[in-house]
Parts: sequence; C-alpha cells; structure tokens
Amino acid sequence: MGRWEPNARERLAKAALELYGERGYEQTTVAEIAKRAGLTERTFFRHYADKREVLFDGASALQELFVNAVADAPEAKAPIDAIAAGLEAVSAVFVGRRGYSRQRHAVVVANAVLQERELIKLASLSAALADALRRRGVPEPAASLTAEAGVAVFKIGFERWVGTAEERTMAQLTRESLAELKAVTAGG
Amino acid sequence: MGRWEPNARERLAKAALELYGERGYEQTTVAEIAKRAGLTERTFFRHYADKREVLFDGASALQELFVNAVADAPEAKAPIDAIAAGLEAVSAVFVGRRGYSRQRHAVVVANAVLQERELIKLASLSAALADALRRRGVPEPAASLTAEAGVAVFKIGFERWVGTAEERTMAQLTRESLAELKAVTAGG
Repeated sequence: MGRWEPNARERLAKAALELYGERGYEQTTVAEIAKRAGLTERTFFRHYADKREVLFDGASALQELFVNAVADAPEAKAPIDAIAAGLEAVSAVFVGRRGYSRQRHAVVVANAVLQERELIKLASLSAALADALRRRGVPEPAASLTAEAGVAVFKIGFERWVGTAEERTMAQLTRESLAELKAVTAGG
Repeated sequence: MGRWEPNARERLAKAALELYGERGYEQTTVAEIAKRAGLTERTFFRHYADKREVLFDGASALQELFVNAVADAPEAKAPIDAIAAGLEAVSAVFVGRRGYSRQRHAVVVANAVLQERELIKLASLSAALADALRRRGVPEPAASLTAEAGVAVFKIGFERWVGTAEERTMAQLTRESLAELKAVTAGG
C-alpha cells in the first residue's frame, strides 16, 4: 500500500462523475479520473476495481441497510410495513446527496450497460428483501410480491427525487409513492 | 432465400432448447442447433440473428399484446384493472406451452447473461405499460407504479406457473398473484 491520501476515495468518485458527465462514461479513462483527482492510477485501483465500480460502490451497503431494517422491524408489523421501515432507513442515506445522485443518475440513464447494471442491482435487492420477509415467516408468493412492491416504490421514489426542481426529501417521496401504490392496487 | 423448410423456425427453437438444457447455453453452437434440427446454419440465420434470439423471440409480441390490451380496456376501468386485462391477454398465450416454458426458464436461470436479458425485457415491458397508462390519462407516479405492479405480478405468476408440479393455468396464477399483491399492499 502506498502513502495515505486524504479523502482519496471521495475525490476519485467526484472526479469520475464530473468526467462521465462531461465526456461520457465510455470516453473516460481511469488515467483521466486519477489525474482530475490529483492522484495516481495506482491509488484509483486501491479503491475501485474499475471505472464502473465507482458508480455502484454504495449498492451493497444500501441493500444491507434495507434488508436489516426489514429484518429488525417489530414482529407484529405486516410485511408491507416492514418494507416501509426499510424504505425509511435507506431514505436517510440520501440526505444531502441529491446533487451527487442527480449527476450519477444522468450518467446511468445515458448508457445501456450501466442501466443493465442498475437493473441487476434492483433484482438483487428484490431477492434479498423477499428472503428477509420469508425469514419473518411471510409465505410465498406474498414475500416476493411485497419485495417487488418495495423495490418499485424505491425506484419510482428515487426517480422523482432526482427529478429537476424536486425539493421534497427521499423519505417524503418514498412515503408518497408507497401511499400511491396502495391507492392504485386498491383500484382507486 | 433458400428452399422452404417446413416448420424450420419451430424445429430450430426446439433443437436449441434441447441442446441448451443438455450441454448448457454457452457450450452450444449454432452449427449444433442446425444439425439437431436437420437443417443448415444458413437456415438458422434466416430465422434468428444469433443463438440468444431463439430464447427471446416472443418478447416483443408479448409486450405488444400486453400494451394493446391495456390501451383497449374500457375507459371507465381503473389503471390496475386495465393492467389486469393485459395480464389476462398475455396469459392466454401461455396455454399449452408449460413444457417449453419450463425448459426455457431452466436455461435462463442457469446463465447470468440470459438473466440480465430477461431483466431488460421486463424493464422494457414496464416502461411500455406506464406509457400506455399515461395515454389513458393516468398521471405520474400512478402510471409507473401501476406498471411496475403489473410486471411484478406477471413475473411472480410466471415463476409459479413454471414451478415443479404446478397445475394451475397462467391465467389463474396471475389472477391469484394480483389478488395477493392487493392484499399485501393493503397491509393484510
């Protein structure tokens, strides 16, 4: 390991996102990212496996947080309320990160390969949530359907949250999206 | 164009699925598929762009059918009931195809690249359904959430339908999955 670079990880992520936005994801090299961050390629590779990982860095931590909140919800809670507890927990992580998330979202939607990666991440989240619900004693297909509903609410809530001029918090938007999902499935 | 081969398309699909099941998808070549079907490689490529397309051949027709049924549902129907009409329409297509669908499903779940392709197909379906609902005057985020709910019901219904020893029809299982989704989102 080389010498310690203060905030290297964050500086690399910031530089990468700037370059992906300016030149496009495909057109950006790791060398350019490192240069923009004032660091070496070697330092980059100490923190990230490749330039894609910069964008999906937080995915497994987010999944773990969501799943743990579902698992830890009071036993008496209905499955959808356990999912709602998970949505609250993950929404807290997005506080203060709208600028970053908007930039990241613009990069992802502009690139088919990154969009696929995002879909895989969401499918993995759904499977993990269904598993957590089954461990709470929720039978199938209720567990899988509730998990899919939770991921849909998360996805739509997030897309609204990064929308232009949107000012409500991620927590507000996921709550509203969940309420809306309940309303539409009730046939309203 | 070469001479006309009776049922070439179906014979190639059947041969491909047999070989994917026996040897694995990655290990099977187009030459082997053509040989098994008693046809030439040239005939294969008149029908399919590559060996992956054999598995995703029906996806766009299915999406079109689903979307048209949603678009054509009586105006007075709630969004979720328009989606239910779409589920009924696509379920009819699966009648008599459980054996084929089970084989295909086994091949897809065994291969990460095919699973990704399946996720993309479902995301495309969801986007097309949301669009159909917006054209019915359904506002956002209700349109996207109802579309996501419909795709979740389709996905879970299908996974149950191809399950070992399952005998209920796709129509029954999607109806049951939709009823179950309504129950779980109601907090039941």
